[in-house]
Amino acid sequence: MAAPRIGIYGLGTMGSALALNMAEKGVPIAVSNRSDEPIGAFAQRAEPLAGDVTTAPDLPALVAALPRPRLLLAMIPSTGPLDALLDEVIPLLDAGDTVIDAGNADFHDTRRRAARLAEHGMHFVGLGVSGGEDGARHGPSMMFGGSEESWAGLQPLLEPIAARFGEDPCVGRMGPDGAGHFVKTVHNGIEYADMQMIAEVYDLLRHGTGLSPEQVADRFEAWNDGPLGSYLYEITAKVLRAQDPLGDGVMVDAILDVAGQKGTGRWTAIEAVRLGQSATMIEGAVAARAWSSEKDLRSALGDAFGDGRETLELDPELLETALLSARVLEYAQGFRILAAASEEFAWELDFARVAEVWRAGCIIRAKLLDDISEAFREGPPLDQLVLAPRFGAIFEAGIPALRRVVAASVAAGFPLPVLASALAFWDTMRRPEGTANLIQAQRDFFGRHGFDRVDGEDRPHGPWWD
Amino acid sequence: MAAPRIGIYGLGTMGSALALNMAEKGVPIAVSNRSDEPIGAFAQRAEPLAGDVTTAPDLPALVAALPRPRLLLAMIPSTGPLDALLDEVIPLLDAGDTVIDAGNADFHDTRRRAARLAEHGMHFVGLGVSGGEDGARHGPSMMFGGSEESWAGLQPLLEPIAARFGEDPCVGRMGPDGAGHFVKTVHNGIEYADMQMIAEVYDLLRHGTGLSPEQVADRFEAWNDGPLGSYLYEITAKVLRAQDPLGDGVMVDAILDVAGQKGTGRWTAIEAVRLGQSATMIEGAVAARAWSSEKDLRSALGDAFGDGRETLELDPELLETALLSARVLEYAQGFRILAAASEEFAWELDFARVAEVWRAGCIIRAKLLDDISEAFREGPPLDQLVLAPRFGAIFEAGIPALRRVVAASVAAGFPLPVLASALAFWDTMRRPEGTANLIQAQRDFFGRHGFDRVDGEDRPHGPWWD
Repeated sequence: MAAPRIGIYGLGTMGSALALNMAEKGVPIAVSNRSDEPIGAFAQRAEPLAGDVTTAPDLPALVAALPRPRLLLAMIPSTGPLDALLDEVIPLLDAGDTVIDAGNADFHDTRRRAARLAEHGMHFVGLGVSGGEDGARHGPSMMFGGSEESWAGLQPLLEPIAARFGEDPCVGRMGPDGAGHFVKTVHNGIEYADMQMIAEVYDLLRHGTGLSPEQVADRFEAWNDGPLGSYLYEITAKVLRAQDPLGDGVMVDAILDVAGQKGTGRWTAIEAVRLGQSATMIEGAVAARAWSSEKDLRSALGDAFGDGRETLELDPELLETALLSARVLEYAQGFRILAAASEEFAWELDFARVAEVWRAGCIIRAKLLDDISEAFREGPPLDQLVLAPRFGAIFEAGIPALRRVVAASVAAGFPLPVLASALAFWDTMRRPEGTANLIQAQRDFFGRHGFDRVDGEDRPHGPWWD
Repeated sequence: MAAPRIGIYGLGTMGSALALNMAEKGVPIAVSNRSDEPIGAFAQRAEPLAGDVTTAPDLPALVAALPRPRLLLAMIPSTGPLDALLDEVIPLLDAGDTVIDAGNADFHDTRRRAARLAEHGMHFVGLGVSGGEDGARHGPSMMFGGSEESWAGLQPLLEPIAARFGEDPCVGRMGPDGAGHFVKTVHNGIEYADMQMIAEVYDLLRHGTGLSPEQVADRFEAWNDGPLGSYLYEITAKVLRAQDPLGDGVMVDAILDVAGQKGTGRWTAIEAVRLGQSATMIEGAVAARAWSSEKDLRSALGDAFGDGRETLELDPELLETALLSARVLEYAQGFRILAAASEEFAWELDFARVAEVWRAGCIIRAKLLDDISEAFREGPPLDQLVLAPRFGAIFEAGIPALRRVVAASVAAGFPLPVLASALAFWDTMRRPEGTANLIQAQRDFFGRHGFDRVDGEDRPHGPWWD
């Protein structure tokens, strides 16, 4: 039996999927879990796979089974339980060992934990893992945050299990400490915006133009074959075709319109604002989910004022180009957050590599990401995706289309929290002369806050203060 | 010389204005400041006023001058300097004494400081003060957060210096610890949204319909005489009429279109999301300010794609009703944040009283606030302002108007980050049946997150998992 190269603690859905993936690739592993039962069950499932599996009854035994320097990957809730694990495991480890948190952590916690382990000469890795259970089992996208040294130890274990875009494994070192978890958080924020845009377009097509769920599915399937190709479009088509096993309608109509959220979308919106980078498309998606939970209020308001909407005439080609431009804007907002965080935390994020790591395995994987990585390799003016020459044609065609879609939908009574925000972002950013001069005048009037003048003259107050 | 009833530390613009206000109302005060010079200057300015002024050379002397239980009000930056002041002053104080922070604090800090002083049996008050220098001097709106006991001590000192709405002094105990500073933060968030809506309408009128600044000022002046009457409309008219003392144009055209922000708008947006209450109108205003600072990007994008807009035909009456409905929505979002915080921190905020305290003295003071306080006194269904019967007519007339304004502006190329968000909020909330069912289906498909069914059957996964 080969000595294990890594220990995996936590054999829930995601932990066991990741461990099975490694065993399948021939990596010898050791595994353990807080409760016994999953350990034996895992050993049975891993039996036919290539890699040797050592089972350990508990955390101390798991640590004892690992050769030094140890690699210990935890897939447990990245909140209190992870801190409790660190309390227990730090005395058992030695300088040079590495603990990896493969859960969905708040990157602030990851930074704190990395600093804690560094005091002991140990490494802490925040590993963002995307792709759900299926991804973890057969090839996730992984965003690594940690020291160069811990990357050198883990890279040979992670690359074989990662999703592949062509030959390129979708795993990379994003930067130190919280960089990996932060990139994963922004990934999820973009995922929120993508999903809400899909919901908005579904709404327009089904309730505005009167298509059936099947016909809407046809649209998403067709778009999925074009430049909008992406995992979420692919599954939207499948979802919309599914029949309710308990009834005679489509599955989607049997589902309550109250959306859950686990926090990463909110974290993205919050961090964006904290960093001075409003990601309004993600904010709109987070809002839409929050509002969906207020079914009582929605019912009362609908009763009082009516929920009427007018019919819409929308050319599907118009929608396709509109969506494509909105998708570039969504990524532009996401990468602006990454840039701001990279500067604040001195991460030196490689944006092209981020886009590459997202090209396969993760939930937001999309054809466009290949163009985005190219755009960053080419170095867009001001490092802004919206200025990348390769996206010029998308905006030239897509913005007028987006404008027509938003104007028509607003007039007909359809809410577009994300698509309308995309257009407001564009229409604000394309104006060299905005209206903040009036805001500055007001602020000076009531609070003596001062302003800069267009002509550069040093006279920072209005005549109202004379 | 009467013994001072309160000590004021920090004689900057706001501190001295508040102290002069007290002295004018006959309250005997003691004052001090970190540096000497402002102390003597203050004494001279206070000389003709009714209240006796004791000056103290430093903080220990100020504390020594106060009778017990002491009331010590600090008007210094509510960040590091305030914590340093607490370090110094706690050993000098006794149980039962009260320290008041009258600055713009993050309410999380206020909660932390209140807990710290409580350990010594002392009170800590977070006092939100709005109205700028002029308000502080002649009658601010004040939002008190602290113990009942400290309110009993301070109420007789604060009521005489507060702004008045009729006979009612615009000061109130919002709740314990951070409640006052949080209400002030949300006040500022609403202020951001109000100012951005004004900027959006100014843009439409001036650059869309071709009115001169003078003509736009006429509009705001006229609106200020109607139901939209508010301090910010009043000063907008004044600002737009002001001439540039260094040139021959209007003042506003000489001001650089790059807006500053001091943090409270961002705090509101962040806390709203953290509390599960997306305040999209405030988010839009925060975004617009952040984007205004990116002049380089705006210029580059304008050069590449053009900043062209079409002319607009807008009936001013349409705008007035649209703005009125948007203002109710803006307050509705603000009070939803307050309700969520009140629940999380067990503050038991009295929303009617909050609205009353905002009726005079503060920056967002507006005629509508009297209706809002009435609406809360009447108890709207689900505690939601949008369901208050007295606003029904405003929505009936205003939402169609808002819809026409937003649709026309979107089509003509004018960004409306706040007004468009108001409509998206409304159009989402008035729909008993939304589109989150599709999002739930997607989440279950890729992450096995599960969902509730419309029929209540316990079958939380789609057929894709069979």
